Amino acid sequence: MINIAVDAMGGDDAPGVVVRGAVNALESRNGFSITLVGKKELIEEELSGETYLKERLSIAEASEVIEMAEPPVAAIRHKKDSSIVVGLNLVKHNEADAFVSAGSTGAVLAGGQLIVGKEKGVKRAPLAPLIPTERGAALLIDCGANVDARADHLLQFAYMGSIYMRDICGVEKPRVAIVNIGAEEEKGNALVKEAYPMLKEAGEKGDIYFVGSIEARDIPKGEADVVVCEAFVGNVILKLYEGVSSTLLDVVKTSIMSTARSKIGGALIKPALKDAMKRFDVSSYGGAPLLGLKNLVVKGHGSSTEVEIKNAILQCFSFIQKDITSKIRESISPEGDREGDITNGI
Amino acid sequence: MINIAVDAMGGDDAPGVVVRGAVNALESRNGFSITLVGKKELIEEELSGETYLKERLSIAEASEVIEMAEPPVAAIRHKKDSSIVVGLNLVKHNEADAFVSAGSTGAVLAGGQLIVGKEKGVKRAPLAPLIPTERGAALLIDCGANVDARADHLLQFAYMGSIYMRDICGVEKPRVAIVNIGAEEEKGNALVKEAYPMLKEAGEKGDIYFVGSIEARDIPKGEADVVVCEAFVGNVILKLYEGVSSTLLDVVKTSIMSTARSKIGGALIKPALKDAMKRFDVSSYGGAPLLGLKNLVVKGHGSSTEVEIKNAILQCFSFIQKDITSKIRESISPEGDREGDITNGI
Repeated sequence: MINIAVDAMGGDDAPGVVVRGAVNALESRNGFSITLVGKKELIEEELSGETYLKERLSIAEASEVIEMAEPPVAAIRHKKDSSIVVGLNLVKHNEADAFVSAGSTGAVLAGGQLIVGKEKGVKRAPLAPLIPTERGAALLIDCGANVDARADHLLQFAYMGSIYMRDICGVEKPRVAIVNIGAEEEKGNALVKEAYPMLKEAGEKGDIYFVGSIEARDIPKGEADVVVCEAFVGNVILKLYEGVSSTLLDVVKTSIMSTARSKIGGALIKPALKDAMKRFDVSSYGGAPLLGLKNLVVKGHGSSTEVEIKNAILQCFSFIQKDITSKIRESISPEGDREGDITNGI
Repeated sequence: MINIAVDAMGGDDAPGVVVRGAVNALESRNGFSITLVGKKELIEEELSGETYLKERLSIAEASEVIEMAEPPVAAIRHKKDSSIVVGLNLVKHNEADAFVSAGSTGAVLAGGQLIVGKEKGVKRAPLAPLIPTERGAALLIDCGANVDARADHLLQFAYMGSIYMRDICGVEKPRVAIVNIGAEEEKGNALVKEAYPMLKEAGEKGDIYFVGSIEARDIPKGEADVVVCEAFVGNVILKLYEGVSSTLLDVVKTSIMSTARSKIGGALIKPALKDAMKRFDVSSYGGAPLLGLKNLVVKGHGSSTEVEIKNAILQCFSFIQKDITSKIRESISPEGDREGDITNGI
């Protein structure tokens, strides 16, 4: 049976939210078990109020917690009994098929690469969250901590992202685009100019469906399913998405509360507005997979809710069932290097 | 008297919008004259319906127009009688003190550097639009076409941006931040890691008020007045600002129109919403200056309205009155190189 390890100590509202998310995931679907990783006593306290399928849920004790602000590589090296390190080791030793954590992004990224390790041929393991667009979700690849990527890294991101969007999100022929400052082929910085012809060639071979450059303004319009970029740029895109949405909504709310007339209107549109916001919430897609590792590692938002934890767990289940790891391995050319590049920028 | 050259042929609704914007600018303030550059016949036709101060408005004939899609450097070189080339030459030969164009961004950027030329000591001329934030406008510097900047370029951007925000926007002590993927000093890509200590040192000397790194999510919150970044990243930020705002508003509008109840509410909040949107509209600040040239060049949005053209012209007037060009020259160390780097990425 598939087993998914879950960091019970990760996230703003851990362990309560994580434990309930795990219980709900088990209830909603059969075919897998969960190992909650963390302080046994605290986890058991949270579980005491819940009804759950005992044979599908176990606890792995981890006495330490890596805090958000800790330097990630040092934390992974020194806190051997932290929930993140213990969870990743379960994956490494095949006692779990995936690990989900809403804890420190840097520690999960560094630990994923140091402990679980990259799949043969994979040059870099990108963090690839789904972001909302007018036409459904798009995969933003890479948003991780390994900045200053090379062109051949971006090419691999395109392959991995295409497999993910096809097999996990059900997009038959995912449109791959590279983030650029103009639509023309000759535009871009040195990295994009080098990567563009490689992506074009992969498209011509039929390996991916490459649609060219995408300007940032067209990302929210949903003009690509796999949005390829270097991690610094991806990080800026992800965080600005969040920042502009929340600031704009604050501005709208303040305006609505400014007159009696609009206050009444505001009350009337509240349900519709809430619904719209939900559709455009960056955090609503659960976790972001760290692709290209020997086994799956998923990073959830620090502010993950029960539903998000549950979704992240179910996402892992699909990922394993569809054997995405093998598909990525097969799609990636075997000449990849494996030198450690994880200390850069974390 | 200060004379401002205005590209009558630039922008989606030229020459009508531009001509009326110019007439309105003359009406609203004394102390300067305008030279409209473009096809005389068309300009005169637009002017025929307007009342304006004839002694403050002249026309400079330019028989050609550079189209948006033309390769910029080639267009500047070959269309010697285009409104952009003629206008920039007026500035070069001191027949105008500034040039405003809502035409091809690439051509204005390339032409600004090729024809007007950089001020002594300036290594790169950044395009620096104002962007809306919760706490007023911030200057995003650089959004131009010269990508892959060096750390010493970013340092100069910080100096130029600080002068602009202080003297044009009235921010007494502009907070300068560098766009980064985390708030800690050790984070970032190679460029940011190199620029950070240089900015910090300038801050310690009291030349600028450096507040450290800014994550993209905090830009819309207004946590910096001068947002320093490399042009590729700046371009992504500017366009994503636009893209997320407009998509989000579309989603909100669609939701509001989906039920009878929220339709009524929508009608009631319309004025408040409109007001909010105006406060958060990227295009509302008129033009983006191309800083660090021997004289001022301002790029207006392609979709500029009359009001935006007027604002861009008045912005030029302030810029010249306050002698920003000299202040920039004085703030920049004199050892700057002047090699042409304008062909990169345009």
